[in-house]
Amino acid sequence: MPNTNLTLNTFLLLSMISFTCDYIEGAHPLILKRLVETNMTQVEGYGEDPFCEAARDKIREATGCPSADVFFLVGGTQTNSTVIDAMLRRYEGVVAVETGHIAVHESGAVEFSGHKVITIPGHNGKMNPEDLRQYLHHFHADPTWPHMVYPGMVYISFPTEYGTIYTRDELSAIKAICDEYEIPLFIDGARLGYGLMSPAADINLRELAQLCDVFYIGGTKVGALCGEAVVFSRGNAPRQFFTIVKQHGALLAKGRLLGLQFDTLFTDELYFKIAQHAIDMAMELKRMFASKGFEFYIDSPTNQQFPILAKEQIDALEGKVLYEVWDTLPDGRYITRFATSWATPRENVELLAQML
Amino acid sequence: MPNTNLTLNTFLLLSMISFTCDYIEGAHPLILKRLVETNMTQVEGYGEDPFCEAARDKIREATGCPSADVFFLVGGTQTNSTVIDAMLRRYEGVVAVETGHIAVHESGAVEFSGHKVITIPGHNGKMNPEDLRQYLHHFHADPTWPHMVYPGMVYISFPTEYGTIYTRDELSAIKAICDEYEIPLFIDGARLGYGLMSPAADINLRELAQLCDVFYIGGTKVGALCGEAVVFSRGNAPRQFFTIVKQHGALLAKGRLLGLQFDTLFTDELYFKIAQHAIDMAMELKRMFASKGFEFYIDSPTNQQFPILAKEQIDALEGKVLYEVWDTLPDGRYITRFATSWATPRENVELLAQML
Amino acid sequence: MPNTNLTLNTFLLLSMISFTCDYIEGAHPLILKRLVETNMTQVEGYGEDPFCEAARDKIREATGCPSADVFFLVGGTQTNSTVIDAMLRRYEGVVAVETGHIAVHESGAVEFSGHKVITIPGHNGKMNPEDLRQYLHHFHADPTWPHMVYPGMVYISFPTEYGTIYTRDELSAIKAICDEYEIPLFIDGARLGYGLMSPAADINLRELAQLCDVFYIGGTKVGALCGEAVVFSRGNAPRQFFTIVKQHGALLAKGRLLGLQFDTLFTDELYFKIAQHAIDMAMELKRMFASKGFEFYIDSPTNQQFPILAKEQIDALEGKVLYEVWDTLPDGRYITRFATSWATPRENVELLAQML
Amino acid sequence: MPNTNLTLNTFLLLSMISFTCDYIEGAHPLILKRLVETNMTQVEGYGEDPFCEAARDKIREATGCPSADVFFLVGGTQTNSTVIDAMLRRYEGVVAVETGHIAVHESGAVEFSGHKVITIPGHNGKMNPEDLRQYLHHFHADPTWPHMVYPGMVYISFPTEYGTIYTRDELSAIKAICDEYEIPLFIDGARLGYGLMSPAADINLRELAQLCDVFYIGGTKVGALCGEAVVFSRGNAPRQFFTIVKQHGALLAKGRLLGLQFDTLFTDELYFKIAQHAIDMAMELKRMFASKGFEFYIDSPTNQQFPILAKEQIDALEGKVLYEVWDTLPDGRYITRFATSWATPRENVELLAQML
Repeated sequence: MPNTNLTLNTFLLLSMISFTCDYIEGAHPLILKRLVETNMTQVEGYGEDPFCEAARDKIREATGCPSADVFFLVGGTQTNSTVIDAMLRRYEGVVAVETGHIAVHESGAVEFSGHKVITIPGHNGKMNPEDLRQYLHHFHADPTWPHMVYPGMVYISFPTEYGTIYTRDELSAIKAICDEYEIPLFIDGARLGYGLMSPAADINLRELAQLCDVFYIGGTKVGALCGEAVVFSRGNAPRQFFTIVKQHGALLAKGRLLGLQFDTLFTDELYFKIAQHAIDMAMELKRMFASKGFEFYIDSPTNQQFPILAKEQIDALEGKVLYEVWDTLPDGRYITRFATSWATPRENVELLAQML
Repeated sequence: MPNTNLTLNTFLLLSMISFTCDYIEGAHPLILKRLVETNMTQVEGYGEDPFCEAARDKIREATGCPSADVFFLVGGTQTNSTVIDAMLRRYEGVVAVETGHIAVHESGAVEFSGHKVITIPGHNGKMNPEDLRQYLHHFHADPTWPHMVYPGMVYISFPTEYGTIYTRDELSAIKAICDEYEIPLFIDGARLGYGLMSPAADINLRELAQLCDVFYIGGTKVGALCGEAVVFSRGNAPRQFFTIVKQHGALLAKGRLLGLQFDTLFTDELYFKIAQHAIDMAMELKRMFASKGFEFYIDSPTNQQFPILAKEQIDALEGKVLYEVWDTLPDGRYITRFATSWATPRENVELLAQML
Repeated sequence: MPNTNLTLNTFLLLSMISFTCDYIEGAHPLILKRLVETNMTQVEGYGEDPFCEAARDKIREATGCPSADVFFLVGGTQTNSTVIDAMLRRYEGVVAVETGHIAVHESGAVEFSGHKVITIPGHNGKMNPEDLRQYLHHFHADPTWPHMVYPGMVYISFPTEYGTIYTRDELSAIKAICDEYEIPLFIDGARLGYGLMSPAADINLRELAQLCDVFYIGGTKVGALCGEAVVFSRGNAPRQFFTIVKQHGALLAKGRLLGLQFDTLFTDELYFKIAQHAIDMAMELKRMFASKGFEFYIDSPTNQQFPILAKEQIDALEGKVLYEVWDTLPDGRYITRFATSWATPRENVELLAQML
Repeated sequence: MPNTNLTLNTFLLLSMISFTCDYIEGAHPLILKRLVETNMTQVEGYGEDPFCEAARDKIREATGCPSADVFFLVGGTQTNSTVIDAMLRRYEGVVAVETGHIAVHESGAVEFSGHKVITIPGHNGKMNPEDLRQYLHHFHADPTWPHMVYPGMVYISFPTEYGTIYTRDELSAIKAICDEYEIPLFIDGARLGYGLMSPAADINLRELAQLCDVFYIGGTKVGALCGEAVVFSRGNAPRQFFTIVKQHGALLAKGRLLGLQFDTLFTDELYFKIAQHAIDMAMELKRMFASKGFEFYIDSPTNQQFPILAKEQIDALEGKVLYEVWDTLPDGRYITRFATSWATPRENVELLAQML
């Protein structure tokens, strides 16, 4: 590794094992291989290249949506704010749970585009269909509603920010409510692969694509250097979405970088295979923590695990393992997050087990 | 090349030589090499990784601005709208020439953030200091100015959209006017390398960094897959610029992708060397066109050349060479653009010469 | 009354007594008198007229803020969104309670300008200083805060949307927290007069002006046809606030209409006297309801009263009295709102008493 | 006149005659009379009152548009930015001439809502149909248009900022072009009455209403204290326009103030009669200047006249007459603006004549 400017902090990091998140490595090696192979091929910019075209076709096939409109954007916050702004009318807001990524961790990108994020309670990160129904019913029953922000769209994430996932029945219920009120359902799939490969998942990609109006297949956290594939399942992209993407600063000049990555991820089911690996590692981590008597803050069936650690354990891992501390409990213990990814080596889980 | 889904159009393209723009290839091979080498190194996200840190240091060194704030964004339009929105007060607009990229080809991204692009006449893409002075003088002399958009910043590009560049004296004059009116000067350097390496340039990177308040070093068009390095020369980044970048959807999760590319480009002067190659090819192209008696729409000293072609010549190149047709002249001839890049093979120039 | 186009609904309304809100009548007669007297006087537009100047002086005197910047805007929602957008930095949001007017009943006007309304729990419409402190502490302690919306300002209303008011101690506590975090405190005074004249108020206008950074004196609901007087207590108006007001569509061409109204309201303490009348009527209403055994949803000390009515009482008032029904209780009774104003005739209260 | 706080400046103004603009007096006396008469009538807020209803009916009658949607907003800039933002899609801009009010004198209110004002050349304030056609043709012929701001609407003013008006043929031509490109035509009628009553007008209100998609009838400058009546001629108001108006801070709580004024202005053709008076005075002014040998900057057929004055004449009027100086000519003479209004006394014109 030629870089001689690495800071001390990094040397520490390099010698430690890390579960801090699912974007600490680069890209799946097959992606890099193809980047190298195709590097000098001259292609059009802005997503009009054959790599993007091939990726679109493969995504249409994988989602079972032959008429889907597929666009490649660069990152999650960008995708959320662009899609939401494009789908909403000027005076509408988007409904999300209080812990939704757009409500908490996107620096107000949705509000920056002029729209309110209307929050309803979350349940381990999930939206309860009944809460949604009650909110919408209450809104429409309130005679002062024209003075309020009209709920023009529903946003959920799959899996959620807390690693939980929706069952097919839950998704169907939410979609049915959206249909009743004639508003679209948008699924943030920044970690979509990890949700679909979860042992708790009773839904596949094709079914999910049918149960919403627009969603995206997260690349950044599932094997790509960057990139999110937005899918308007029924060819229902807003008029001039290309221009809207550009207006939001979300159009990549060398669209090939995105197209080629998704083309690779959707060749030979690579996307699903590497997501499965992350899930396998997460379940091993979960079993390991459970077998040692740790409690969990949330019972997550995906690649994020939330064991509760005592001070001694925090101390024991100090300088050896990286992970996130989310909060403290009244009894002084810590809520932590350990994330696996397509790149997590099995030995890291084993090393961690030995330290606890 | 494993992709079997290439369209007919692409096969044509692959067998043709292309001068359509400076982002038709991937990245400089050294960048890909380092991406591969560092791929499994685990690092922090959001630009807090050692590659970004190293790149920042090297850019501070190369620009002669030891206290500069350096940020890495993904693309040009995104960078323009984020920097402009961050630097302007809420009620201010940005002054640009009529042909400025932000005024014409960014889908209204600046207006999307709430600011007017105030245009003054351009001269082959350049802003005339005297025009700027007159505009500002006239504005401040108008008693109704509080009802107008306050000019809070000046935007120029180096090189311009027409390939022209500013001399040191011109830049100094513009900067002096900005200082007089106490407004910042922002230089769009999407093609900065090609401007600095131009035989007509009488200014280097360090001098340019001193003659503005913020600028960016374009990566997308000069050897990178993506990425623009924003430099606030005097450590004058707006408060919480990081959050503003995120709010604008411009924060890359795997910041390493940007850091590593700029770290590579600013190691051993790679950025300048590859820009020099593009300039060499452009000058060869220019000489070739001139020697064959072609006129030019603009006398460009950088990597974009604008020869005027007659219908017969257009026909002669059909199916063999790709380039852009910008406009038609009253006499029926065509204004064309031939762009070279760090990746343009010398033989392509020679092949083109044989066809004309 | 010459208008012959009145609808049936209005005839009903005219023959009924109404407590629906505090803006159902026109303006205090003295205001109309002066509008008539000064009508043909030729003056400058846009608030540069002598009426505005006189009003500004009187407000500076009444608020005890000799260096205050005073601006006249037209309506409440407009004033809230303009002041908030002008005071906040681009990436900041405003903290309010969940029931705050800006959070609920302004059609997302704050978000329209790009800023998030960050909500914390309300207590009968009021912000608890301790809640604010905890929220701010928690925000700043969270290492991910640069990915969140920075709390750049605190918004409270006096009185609140539920008719409650803050004590001097509560206001002082909130202001101290704002000072600690170096963010301004903004008081929405759409019904300011009714708060200050409440028997529960232990604070006067001068004290209130010291305990915040900007507030407004509501005209629309306290005797004027329209108009809100924004007071930056310490001459701390944002740079070019005039232009910002225009940019937000909030600048009235005939500023005289606003200036003359506030000049009148702040001559001989008219503003306070008419607010006192509304409070007197509200207290009489309150005593009347209480004496008849009604419970209240909220114990309001201002001009909005919230008695709980049973179905029979709702029926009894049908077609005779107008008021608002806010919600139903689990036991089937109704939360209602009866509002008095500067214009409420005493006999209306007596008539209502006879019907219950 | 009871106000004792008038500044010296005002006393000067009171003793001078003023032609500075058309909003220096209050309202037509009939409006004040009716405000007084109806003052204590209790009505609904937010434009749901019988005065607004009556005014809407009369405007539907006067415009010959029985199914028109009519809304009352407070001021011109506010109306322009609200209507434009409501009619445009998110990525669209509005086409106007360079001297259009929205392009020059609204502090960027349109851009504040996220939309670009796309300017084409003006001709004495007017848009040339041929210029519009060429611009639209050129835009749609440019293959890079998806990277540009889509022209989604055309804005013109009648009369223009320079007092000129469109003929029926010119308006028809512009409307036909808009129809061809399927974009709406919006007419800013801040001074509509003065345009329709011009001796040069060959079009009436009903015809104008048919030749656009939305326009407004200016009240502020034609007899009202404030208020602009927006007319969507074919009942084509954007969905939830009421909410959009509120979101833009343009909804007046006491909508009665607007409704009653327009009800009065559209009773017995008051609006047209008082506009006719202003035109009569302007034509007298014009004849007077012409008879004394003055040249005009623009040959205006409406209430704004632009005589060119020499230094001696400027000096002669000093301290006696108020008017606007717009600019200086190369020969040292001044372009001035003298505006008449519904309130201009004939003797003021005669007094002015004596001074020149």
